[in-house]
Amino acid sequence: MEKNYKINIVEDVAGVSVVQGFSAGAAACDIRNKNDFNRLDTAVIVSDVLATAAGVFTTNDVKAAPVLVDIANLERSKKVKAIVANSGNANACTGDRGMDDARNTCSYLAEKLGVEKNQILVCSTGRIGEFMPMEKLKKGIDEAVSGMSKTEDKAIAAANAILTSDTRSKTVSVDVEFGGKKVKIAGMAKGAGMIEPNMATMLAFIVSDAKISQSLLKECLKFAANKSFNRITVDGDMSTNDTVLCLCNGTSGVEISEDDADSIMAFREGLLEASRVLARKIVGDGEKITKVVEVNVKGARTEEQAEKICRAIGNSLLVKSSWFGEDPNWGRITDSAGYARTGLVLEKIDLDYDGIPVLKSGQPIAENKELWKQAVSKKTFSINLHLNLGTASESILASDLTDGYVNFNKGE
Amino acid sequence: MEKNYKINIVEDVAGVSVVQGFSAGAAACDIRNKNDFNRLDTAVIVSDVLATAAGVFTTNDVKAAPVLVDIANLERSKKVKAIVANSGNANACTGDRGMDDARNTCSYLAEKLGVEKNQILVCSTGRIGEFMPMEKLKKGIDEAVSGMSKTEDKAIAAANAILTSDTRSKTVSVDVEFGGKKVKIAGMAKGAGMIEPNMATMLAFIVSDAKISQSLLKECLKFAANKSFNRITVDGDMSTNDTVLCLCNGTSGVEISEDDADSIMAFREGLLEASRVLARKIVGDGEKITKVVEVNVKGARTEEQAEKICRAIGNSLLVKSSWFGEDPNWGRITDSAGYARTGLVLEKIDLDYDGIPVLKSGQPIAENKELWKQAVSKKTFSINLHLNLGTASESILASDLTDGYVNFNKGE
Repeated sequence: MEKNYKINIVEDVAGVSVVQGFSAGAAACDIRNKNDFNRLDTAVIVSDVLATAAGVFTTNDVKAAPVLVDIANLERSKKVKAIVANSGNANACTGDRGMDDARNTCSYLAEKLGVEKNQILVCSTGRIGEFMPMEKLKKGIDEAVSGMSKTEDKAIAAANAILTSDTRSKTVSVDVEFGGKKVKIAGMAKGAGMIEPNMATMLAFIVSDAKISQSLLKECLKFAANKSFNRITVDGDMSTNDTVLCLCNGTSGVEISEDDADSIMAFREGLLEASRVLARKIVGDGEKITKVVEVNVKGARTEEQAEKICRAIGNSLLVKSSWFGEDPNWGRITDSAGYARTGLVLEKIDLDYDGIPVLKSGQPIAENKELWKQAVSKKTFSINLHLNLGTASESILASDLTDGYVNFNKGE
Repeated sequence: MEKNYKINIVEDVAGVSVVQGFSAGAAACDIRNKNDFNRLDTAVIVSDVLATAAGVFTTNDVKAAPVLVDIANLERSKKVKAIVANSGNANACTGDRGMDDARNTCSYLAEKLGVEKNQILVCSTGRIGEFMPMEKLKKGIDEAVSGMSKTEDKAIAAANAILTSDTRSKTVSVDVEFGGKKVKIAGMAKGAGMIEPNMATMLAFIVSDAKISQSLLKECLKFAANKSFNRITVDGDMSTNDTVLCLCNGTSGVEISEDDADSIMAFREGLLEASRVLARKIVGDGEKITKVVEVNVKGARTEEQAEKICRAIGNSLLVKSSWFGEDPNWGRITDSAGYARTGLVLEKIDLDYDGIPVLKSGQPIAENKELWKQAVSKKTFSINLHLNLGTASESILASDLTDGYVNFNKGE
């Protein structure tokens, strides 16, 4: 397909303040109940005008209260005014009280902003199974709203306020040009633990000045999330709270619509690029990881086969441990590829590390051990597995598994 | 169903020498190429008479050469004379040469024992992707055969020779009585790493003096393996070499046959009990583990649903890390149960640790945190999740995940 658009990605950027008409605010209200009023834990993103909104949510059977509330709100309202998010408490598995808390959070902010309660989206991330300290959160919302602005520092503060075990904030902006028109897309995200394909404890908030319908935005966001946030794995654990939200306020005047295929293509790719940058930042900041590995499976019969094999490799504890040890242990790669049980044929497999051949037609080739070792000793490298069965391909980004991860997550 | 049999399990036992008519031998021939001629690495189990044989093998798309050879041999021969097994080299992903090596191993032992090459079964476990040092292995076979006997010490030596990262040998014997008749079943196994449901780097060799047809033995073995070896998980990695073999020499004169339902029931349960003991020993000796946890899912719509949830919990890195830390983190349990995506309903879930209630109808109950902590601080405990959706149930045995596991497996 011809490419009638131009995309410019800026990685080191303040985040949502890049797009006209969006304000951000943040507060530290000790949601973690640790008497720490320095750590930011509450963020708001507010649109001057009501903005078209769409979301992609965890597919976990167990969905946290804010996820359920957002799904309902997006069904009722095509447009929303603001997002409120907190870190430190996931408000998940908190029963009826948790649902009330999530709804009350929306009502509280709605009243402050003079909109309907269904026009607010809410996100939480943190520990599961504890009730939200609502009085604290309300104070945090008061503070975040009263201090909110369109300045970079507030956008950065908001990006910091949603972090949990992340070590750094994650932002991006993307300029999309097509047919002499221009739209901006900008976003912020958090990740760190429980990161697995199909949404993981990750939150991503993306804003744009494009003019678009909810149904089309939903479609574009689903496409972008599927090829980015759903193609990363840190630990194979999928969270109860994963959420990607996108708000489009239309201030650019540029319409993305079914009548203009180029506009859809351009916007969708822009969203995808923004999502990819955020997804890569999430993996790169996975809990105590030391490597980011791109797993590419090519020559599969179907994309489904390629994806299954990508995930089996990227989630194998033995493979991930060997990456941590910089051990070019290809046996573990073929083993895990095999237990995806997709009908691969060992005798047809070609494998390389960063272009350095490892297996040819399933047979170990002349020893390249020194070169393999060099490849897997880099902080990022690629594993390329060619099945030679067809033409489909898929990729995921995966981290290694470290002793640090286990100790970090053993809790208490 | 009425239980017309009696089963007696003996755990601390020499292994295959318990059953009349089987000899064992072992040798140390430095298969690991470490100039270590003290570590046993080659084992033989030889039947005086040709014995009915059946096997259950890894379902990995990538099957090691010995697995492929055994599957072929069992198709050609209903009866076999012996098993030869080595540790230190898996002979997996070794191409045509690996197939030749596995076949030649059978021929070599067959010639020594005066039988057809198809009447020998071969198993290997160890590192993937390296060629078998055949001259060493042949010397090992020479030594194992010339020294083989029906004594306990040789059975113990054979059980030790198949170990890799295991810290202790694993044996069992079971006496089965029904209708005044008696058969004996005895076995040995190895496990340690790459242990996942559906066969994992585990080998188990079971012998019996029962008289049985190959087709019936196959059926009974499949049943037993499915409810034992396929219900354990250490790291979720399934190996290329997993094999369970069973040899029945008929010396008891007791026939297990379709004409006598009681005989099948009794023998099948005996096999299952023997397999369960070996499976439990495999998990309990998982690489660097500190806990063995029984995950029970009850009240499921189907056994499939229950099993999927068991595996999601038992393979969750976050759950396993929290077990290591003795952290009663029930949020991670409901989270992982949810991402099995079987359609569970949080509001219906009851959860307890070793009988101590944690959730009732999906709502956190009055704090039992001290009691929860006590439960998960034990070396073995159970997680009981009642879905309240139906009547099906399943269980698996899972280990925790430790920093030691990661460091042990980072390689080189």
